[in-house]
Amino acid sequence: MTSTAIFYHAGCPVCVEAERLLAEAIDRQRYTVETVHLGETPRRIAEAEAAGVKSVPAIVLDGVPLHINFGAALADLKAAG
Amino acid sequence: MTSTAIFYHAGCPVCVEAERLLAEAIDRQRYTVETVHLGETPRRIAEAEAAGVKSVPAIVLDGVPLHINFGAALADLKAAG
Repeated sequence: MTSTAIFYHAGCPVCVEAERLLAEAIDRQRYTVETVHLGETPRRIAEAEAAGVKSVPAIVLDGVPLHINFGAALADLKAAG
Repeated sequence: MTSTAIFYHAGCPVCVEAERLLAEAIDRQRYTVETVHLGETPRRIAEAEAAGVKSVPAIVLDGVPLHINFGAALADLKAAG
């Protein structure tokens, strides 16, 4: 059985970068990786909430929510904006 | 070249579980994965700080710090305690 990893985010460029790093690191031979932009697909917010997602960005690994704070410096936000 | 993933934590059982989930998901053919308990090895706190780690648990992927909040329910903390 393939495990699942779902990233939820809302389009912040720094957060997208954080998720890209994590998605890149995940073993795709064992995990099906999906990225969901909740700003563009708000119909999936309920699904994210049901999985326990309280904030974005978050990754749900086999149903377990992990909330990610990039700890972005303002300088990074300026560079990404 | 192998990429590196370093988990920093301080022993909270729920946080350890969060990190175990992430460590399990990472592709070990491409990443060297290391877990560092900063409570037990405080000499590595400076290294974590230098990588940009502000809080634990955190994972540093190829030098980029990602801070993880498990969003643990109190019920989970009771179960893990």
